[in-house]
Amino acid sequence: MTSSVLPVAPTRGRLRPLGLDEVRITGGFWARRRHTNTTATLGHCRDWMDRVGWTGNFRAAAEGRIERDRRGREFADSEIYKLLEAMAWEAANGGGTPLDTGITALTDLVAPAQDPDGYLSTAFGRPGQPARYSDLEEGHELYCQGHLIQAGVAQARARGEGELAKIAQRAADHVCSTFGPGGIESFCGHPQIESALVELARLTGRQRYLDQAALFVERRGHGTLTEGEFGAAYFQDDVPVRRATVLRGHAVRALYLAAGAVDVAVETGDEELLAAVVRQWEATVARRTYLTGGMGSHHRDESFGTDFVLPPDRAYSETCAGVASVMLAWRLLLATGEPRFADLVERTLFNVVATSPAEDGRSFFYANTLHRRHRGSAPRPDVDSPRADSGLRAPWFAVSCCPTNVARTLAQLPAYLATADDEGVQLHQYADADLATTLTGGRGVALRIRTDYPSDGGVTVRVGRSPADPWTLSLRVPAWAAGAPAWLTDPDGIRRPVAPGTATVTRVFRPGDELRLELPVAPRWIHADPRIDAVRGTVAVQRGPLVYCAESVDLPEGHDVDAVRVDTSVAPEDGPSGGGPEGAVVVAGEVAVRAGRGEAPWPYAPLEEHGEQRPADPAGIVLVPYHSWADRGPSTMRVWLPTGEAE
Amino acid sequence: MTSSVLPVAPTRGRLRPLGLDEVRITGGFWARRRHTNTTATLGHCRDWMDRVGWTGNFRAAAEGRIERDRRGREFADSEIYKLLEAMAWEAANGGGTPLDTGITALTDLVAPAQDPDGYLSTAFGRPGQPARYSDLEEGHELYCQGHLIQAGVAQARARGEGELAKIAQRAADHVCSTFGPGGIESFCGHPQIESALVELARLTGRQRYLDQAALFVERRGHGTLTEGEFGAAYFQDDVPVRRATVLRGHAVRALYLAAGAVDVAVETGDEELLAAVVRQWEATVARRTYLTGGMGSHHRDESFGTDFVLPPDRAYSETCAGVASVMLAWRLLLATGEPRFADLVERTLFNVVATSPAEDGRSFFYANTLHRRHRGSAPRPDVDSPRADSGLRAPWFAVSCCPTNVARTLAQLPAYLATADDEGVQLHQYADADLATTLTGGRGVALRIRTDYPSDGGVTVRVGRSPADPWTLSLRVPAWAAGAPAWLTDPDGIRRPVAPGTATVTRVFRPGDELRLELPVAPRWIHADPRIDAVRGTVAVQRGPLVYCAESVDLPEGHDVDAVRVDTSVAPEDGPSGGGPEGAVVVAGEVAVRAGRGEAPWPYAPLEEHGEQRPADPAGIVLVPYHSWADRGPSTMRVWLPTGEAE
Repeated sequence: MTSSVLPVAPTRGRLRPLGLDEVRITGGFWARRRHTNTTATLGHCRDWMDRVGWTGNFRAAAEGRIERDRRGREFADSEIYKLLEAMAWEAANGGGTPLDTGITALTDLVAPAQDPDGYLSTAFGRPGQPARYSDLEEGHELYCQGHLIQAGVAQARARGEGELAKIAQRAADHVCSTFGPGGIESFCGHPQIESALVELARLTGRQRYLDQAALFVERRGHGTLTEGEFGAAYFQDDVPVRRATVLRGHAVRALYLAAGAVDVAVETGDEELLAAVVRQWEATVARRTYLTGGMGSHHRDESFGTDFVLPPDRAYSETCAGVASVMLAWRLLLATGEPRFADLVERTLFNVVATSPAEDGRSFFYANTLHRRHRGSAPRPDVDSPRADSGLRAPWFAVSCCPTNVARTLAQLPAYLATADDEGVQLHQYADADLATTLTGGRGVALRIRTDYPSDGGVTVRVGRSPADPWTLSLRVPAWAAGAPAWLTDPDGIRRPVAPGTATVTRVFRPGDELRLELPVAPRWIHADPRIDAVRGTVAVQRGPLVYCAESVDLPEGHDVDAVRVDTSVAPEDGPSGGGPEGAVVVAGEVAVRAGRGEAPWPYAPLEEHGEQRPADPAGIVLVPYHSWADRGPSTMRVWLPTGEAE
Repeated sequence: MTSSVLPVAPTRGRLRPLGLDEVRITGGFWARRRHTNTTATLGHCRDWMDRVGWTGNFRAAAEGRIERDRRGREFADSEIYKLLEAMAWEAANGGGTPLDTGITALTDLVAPAQDPDGYLSTAFGRPGQPARYSDLEEGHELYCQGHLIQAGVAQARARGEGELAKIAQRAADHVCSTFGPGGIESFCGHPQIESALVELARLTGRQRYLDQAALFVERRGHGTLTEGEFGAAYFQDDVPVRRATVLRGHAVRALYLAAGAVDVAVETGDEELLAAVVRQWEATVARRTYLTGGMGSHHRDESFGTDFVLPPDRAYSETCAGVASVMLAWRLLLATGEPRFADLVERTLFNVVATSPAEDGRSFFYANTLHRRHRGSAPRPDVDSPRADSGLRAPWFAVSCCPTNVARTLAQLPAYLATADDEGVQLHQYADADLATTLTGGRGVALRIRTDYPSDGGVTVRVGRSPADPWTLSLRVPAWAAGAPAWLTDPDGIRRPVAPGTATVTRVFRPGDELRLELPVAPRWIHADPRIDAVRGTVAVQRGPLVYCAESVDLPEGHDVDAVRVDTSVAPEDGPSGGGPEGAVVVAGEVAVRAGRGEAPWPYAPLEEHGEQRPADPAGIVLVPYHSWADRGPSTMRVWLPTGEAE
C-alpha cells in the first residue's frame, strides 16, 4: 500500500500521504514555480556552490588539504545535501536522466570525504581542524549529517537504493554509535537530524535510528549545551519538548525540532509528546505568527519574539522558518487529520515560500519583512549578499540556506496536495493536478483537478477511475473563507453551502463524475488582534490565501507607502483585468501629501497640535500579491495599511 | 579665565563651559543620583571589575602571563579607564581623599602594563596574542587607549598633572607616531579616541594630538575597514563625515564619531565640518530618535534604524548611546549656543541616563525599551547578564559599558548646567545648584538656583555676587513647554510670558536679587508623527521633561499593560500627593477585559468580525516616570498607550 516516493512516510497516523508517483501538478501557480525550480534554481545552486567553494570542500577533504582550503561556514556541507535532496525529488517527479547524472556527480564528490567509521564533515575532525563534536552548540556536524541522511532517504525513495543512501546510512550508524546509549550524552545545537533519522528508520525498518532520534528529542531542554549570548532557549535547551507550551528561540531550530518530535511521537505511539507539540503549535500560531504565516520576528537571534511582538518593520520571517513551518504542519496534518494544519501550510506556501524566489528562480529573499521603508539597492551579483536587510532578492548568501530549502520544498510539493485513508481521498491544497492512488482493498482511484486557484476560487474535481463501492472525497474549505459563502456541487448537480473545515461527499463515484468547489476569493479587509501593537490602526487585504501589499511602484511618482491611507468603509475590489500588475486589487483610499513633510525638527508633539494636511490622489490604491513584491525593482512596501486620514 | 576642571574645554565657540569647581549641584533629582554614584556605583564597578578579572588583566600583562589568563572582551581595558575618569571628576566635585587613593591604586595597576613605546593594551601585541592593530575593525585598541587618554585628561584637570596623565600622554604619542603621516593609514572601528585626542590637545596645547584626531575623522568614510556582517555603515566607513546627511550604523560609534568631529571642527575653525554634523544631528533627531531621547532601534547590530523605524517593542535605545548623545549635544551647544541642543541633553538625561541605574546604583539597564510585554526575571547576581533582553536591571554585563558610562556622566553633570559668554551667564539645566564664575573683565558672579524641578516647574535664581555693570542672565525655556504658558519674573517683580528658546534679563544685578522662572510641567498627551508606524493609534504622556509609562504593578491584579486604553478627551492629571507611587500621573481610561482573551486560534480576522468586549475598571490609570520603571520588581510596561475602546 505504501508508495515508494514519499517525502514523509509515517507508519501510522490519521492520514496516509501520497507519493510523488501518485500526484502530479500539471499547471497553474505552482507548476510555473516548479518548472523554474527544475530548469533554473537547481543549476543556479550548483553553480554557486562550485563558485564559492562549498563543493570544493569535499575534494579538498579527500585530498588532505581541507584545513587550509576550506571555504564557507561550518554548515556549508548541508547545502550540497539539501540540493541532492531537491534533485532526488525532482528526479522522481519526472526530471529524468540529467538530474540522475547530476546526483551521481555530487555523490561521487561527497563519497571520498567520508571517514571509514561513517563520520562525514569537511569542517571538523581532520588534522588542523577542531575535533569532532567539540562544538555541539554551533558546529552543526549532526545537522549536516542529518541533511545527508535526509538526502539519502530521498534518493532511495526516488530511485531505489543507491550510493548516496549507503553513505547516509553509514553516517547514521556512526551517529548512533557515537551518541547512543553509553556514548556522548548530548545533541546538536541545530535540530534537523531527528526527523532525518526517523525517516531513515521508516525506510530501513531499523529501530536503532528511531531510538536515536527519540534520544535526541528527550535529551533537549535540560541545560546540557553551553549557553551562549542568546541563552538556552535559543537552541530549545531550556525546557524539555514534552513540557514546553510554545515555540521559542531560534525559529528554524524550534520548528525542525518540533517536526522531529512529531515524527518520534507518531512512530513510538507517544500521545503525550504529540499533544505537547500540538499545544506549542497552537500557541505559536495564535500569538507568534505573521499574517503571511511567517515566523520569527527578531533579527538579532533569528528567534520568535514573545507573544504578539510581531512588528512588520524589519520582520525577520526567515524563508527557512516558513519551510520548517510547512514541514511541521504537514506532519501534524498526517498525524491528526485536522484541516487547520493544512490551512497554515497553504498560507505559508503562498506568502513565504512563494515570496522568496524571484520569478526566474535565481535570486531569493532570506528574510521576508512585511514593511519596507526605503528602496533597496540591487545586491552586487558577484558577492555574498547580506542576508537580512536587502530590499531586493539576492542570488546567494554567505549563509545560503534558503535557496536549497525552497528548492527541496518545491520539489516535494505535489505530495502535499492530497492524502488517503480507509474512507477515501482528502484534498488539502488546490492546484491543477492529476492524482492516482489505491485505496484499501486495492480499489484504484484517479482524479483530475482543474482550477485557476488562487486567482479563481473554483475547483473542479473529475473522477477518472473509481471502485464500484462508495468512498468519501474530502475537500478542505480554508479557514480564510469564514464569513463568506463557499459552495460544493456534487456529481448530481446539487449545490450546498460548505463551512470552513472539511466538506465531504460519500457515494459511489463513476468515471466522468465531477464535483465543483467554489471558494470565496473576493478580497477582504483583515484586521489584527489589538495586542499586536505594531499594526494598530492599520488593516491588511487578503484575497483567498494571498496576502496583499502596497508597493511604491504602483503609487504616484515620488510617493512612498508611508503616505497611503485606506478607507475600509468600501470593500476592496479586484483590479481591472488586462491593465495593471497581475492579480492586483484596488482599495479605496488616498495617497496623502503631508504639508511640510520631513521638516518637523522633532517628531513628537502635544496632541492639540496637528500639522496641516491635505488629501491628494483620491483614486483607488493598487495592491499586489505580497509574494510578487520587489519583482519590479527597488520599492517601498507595506502589508498593513493605515486607516483614516493622515494626521 | 578658563577653569581648571572642565570635562570639555573648547578654545573657541559660542559659549564658554563652566568647570566642576564653578558649579555644584546641592540638592534634588540629580544630587540624589550623584550621591549614589559616589557612594555606591564607583565601588560597585571596581568590585565587579576585580571579580570578573578585568583589573587582573593588567597584573597578568605586567607579569607576562596575559595570553593565558586574560579575561573579558577585547575592550575590557576601557572600563578601568572610564571608571578612572568618573573617579577623577568626582574627586574634583569634592569626593576627596578616598577617591584619590582609589585613582592611585588603579593607576599603579595600569602603569606597568604600558609598553616602553607607550602602547597599552592587555589584549594585543604580546607573545601569544594577536599582533598590534591586526583587527582595527573590532579590536578596540585605539578605543581603549582613547579612554585612557580621556581619563588622563580628567585626572590632570581634576588634580593637576599626575601619573595617569603621563601614561595617557605616552599612549597618545605612540598613537600619533603609529597612525600619523607616514604611519598606518587607518583608524579604529569604534570611534572614541578622536574626542580624547582633541581634549589632550586642549590640555597640553600640543597641535600633534589635534592633527591626529582630524586625520582619524577625515580618513573615515572611504571604505578602508574590512566590511563585516553589518556593512561599512556599521562603523561609519561608508560616507565621509563631512558628506553624511544623517547618523547611521552602530549608534554609539556614530555618536562618538560625531562628537569627535565637532571637537575637531571647533578647534580647527572648520565651519563646513561643524555644519555637516549639525545637519546629521537634525535629521537624526527628527526621524531616528525615541520620545525618551533614546537612539538606536536595532538589537542585531545596535544600530540606528532607517527613518521613522522606532518600534517601542524591544527598542534598543542603548544607555551608552544616550551618554554619547549627551556628549554630542553638549558640544554642539557650546559651539552654537542654540537651546535645542540643551533640550535634547535634558530629555536624554532624564529619560535614558537616569533610567539605566537602579535607585541603589548597583544595577543597570543596558538597553531601554519603551514597551515591555512580559515580566522579566531577576538576573542571577553571580553571572554576567544578557545585556539586552532583561526586564530588570542587572549588576554587570559581559559587555559592561553602561555602568561606567553612567558613572562618568553623572560625575561631570554639574558642568552641563550652565555656561558663560561675554554677555553673561546661561542656565541650560535646572537643579538646586550654586554657581560662581568670573565674567570677562574679572567681573565675579555668584548665583544660587533653587527648585524642585522636574517635580515642580518653578526655578528661583538668587544673585549672590554681581559686578556693578549690567550683564545678561539667560534661561532656557524648554521646547517641551510649547503651547503652554511659561513665565519669568524679574527682580523688580515684573512677570512676563516667555516662549520656548532663551529668555534673557539684562540689567545691573545686585546681591539678593531674585528671578523666578515658571515652567508648565502639567502632564500632557503627546502624539507621534504618523510615519512612526509602530505607535499609530497610541499616545504618550510627558510631564515637563519626563516621559511617563504605564506599569503592570499599578494595574488591577492579573492585568498587563496590553489591556490599557486611554481617553485623550480628558487631560492627564497629577496623582494625589502622599498616595501612590512617587511622581505619578493619572489618566482617564480603562483596563479592558477581552472576552475569550488569548483563545483566538488565529490573531487576524476579517474586519467585520470583532470579538465581544467589555470595559472594566473605568477608574483612572496610574502612570509613573519612565526612569523609575522596574524599580518595584518585574513588570510589564509601556510608554505609548492605545487610545479608544478595546477592539
